[in-house]
Amino acid sequence: MPPKALVFDVFGTVVDWRHGVARDVATVLPGVDAAAFADAWRRKYQPAMAAVRDGRRPFTRLDVLHRENLEAVLADHGADLPEVQKAWLNTAWHRLDPWPDVIAGLARLKARHIIAPLSNGNIALMVNMAKRAGLPWDAILGAEVAQAYKPAPQAYLRTAEVLGLAPAEVMLVAAHNGDLAAARDCGLQTAFVARPTEHGPAQRSDLAPEQAWDIVVADFPGVASALGC
Amino acid sequence: MPPKALVFDVFGTVVDWRHGVARDVATVLPGVDAAAFADAWRRKYQPAMAAVRDGRRPFTRLDVLHRENLEAVLADHGADLPEVQKAWLNTAWHRLDPWPDVIAGLARLKARHIIAPLSNGNIALMVNMAKRAGLPWDAILGAEVAQAYKPAPQAYLRTAEVLGLAPAEVMLVAAHNGDLAAARDCGLQTAFVARPTEHGPAQRSDLAPEQAWDIVVADFPGVASALGC
Repeated sequence: MPPKALVFDVFGTVVDWRHGVARDVATVLPGVDAAAFADAWRRKYQPAMAAVRDGRRPFTRLDVLHRENLEAVLADHGADLPEVQKAWLNTAWHRLDPWPDVIAGLARLKARHIIAPLSNGNIALMVNMAKRAGLPWDAILGAEVAQAYKPAPQAYLRTAEVLGLAPAEVMLVAAHNGDLAAARDCGLQTAFVARPTEHGPAQRSDLAPEQAWDIVVADFPGVASALGC
Repeated sequence: MPPKALVFDVFGTVVDWRHGVARDVATVLPGVDAAAFADAWRRKYQPAMAAVRDGRRPFTRLDVLHRENLEAVLADHGADLPEVQKAWLNTAWHRLDPWPDVIAGLARLKARHIIAPLSNGNIALMVNMAKRAGLPWDAILGAEVAQAYKPAPQAYLRTAEVLGLAPAEVMLVAAHNGDLAAARDCGLQTAFVARPTEHGPAQRSDLAPEQAWDIVVADFPGVASALGC
């Protein structure tokens, strides 16, 4: 059965976070290795969400976690910025560009399916990103709506529930095997799109599917073709 | 200051619920006065939400309240339906048509502003309605995201908050003075669009603005023109 809705991991799968964050880092921190700064900022992402997932902290939206992590990365670099520049840099995550194949693929999928982000990014982040990049989402779903961070099962199950769909009627599209494994455990369909340079030229993770996902393709138009769109 | 986001009441303001519900009632209950049935169903809407607003009941999405109210209206009419027809009729609220001016007005507003429903309808209802009718929302917000039913202040305040905006950066567009009054009390900007036949030809409420709303116009293109779009 084809899915009624496709939901998408965003950071890495839809947008190239590393180049986008590094671009904005370079603007306000010209003396810093911008790509390394972006990587360091991203490395603090999972530990910050783990505190929420483990119940050590109430649900806190990603813009807040990103800001805390930015302060820490700046301190690690022995750097600081005026408040207005820190606030601007924190929204680098709102200004990420999609991979070149994304818009064309989403347009084809949207004609026959509900399409929405299922990201750990918060609603404002996803709305601002979509407006800037022209991502034609039907809804903004994800961690803030579900009040749970992936890969917690509630993130996937509540997303299907608010769409009025059974988990099996929803397909997650992601570039990360761990995300797809958690979605499959919840009963969702799965599509793997390889993003072999998400982490830069020396990437070693998620270069290939680690399970027999329902769809394995190289780009978003490939997902549309696999679903007959 | 122009608003960064416009959020919209939906039932009555964006879509003509009375004709749409009556159309589907007539399909499965041919012996019934379909408009009167639609009115009776709608009359049970506010009391059902009041139980949530008053804390007598946990937040319950509108599809569930609509179904309970449908059972009651059927019983009041001495009627019943097979389960499959009841389930179909309950989603009449997902299949409502917009007023004729809506799509053109939203397209103009979307070019410069974030646009989203701020409805008491749940996410699935709003997504299905938008897909069918071509409503070009940037996000699906409202009661289910805020976990509060209008006119509770949380419905307006949490909607601004998830957009990362101050209340004054958000404008509510509505055909109902009560909705606009509650939004203004929370600091939102306000636009009144008259919908003088929402309740049929003998409508007596909400025919005119009852306060000096920031914008008072006859249709959605009028909102766009008032904002210079």
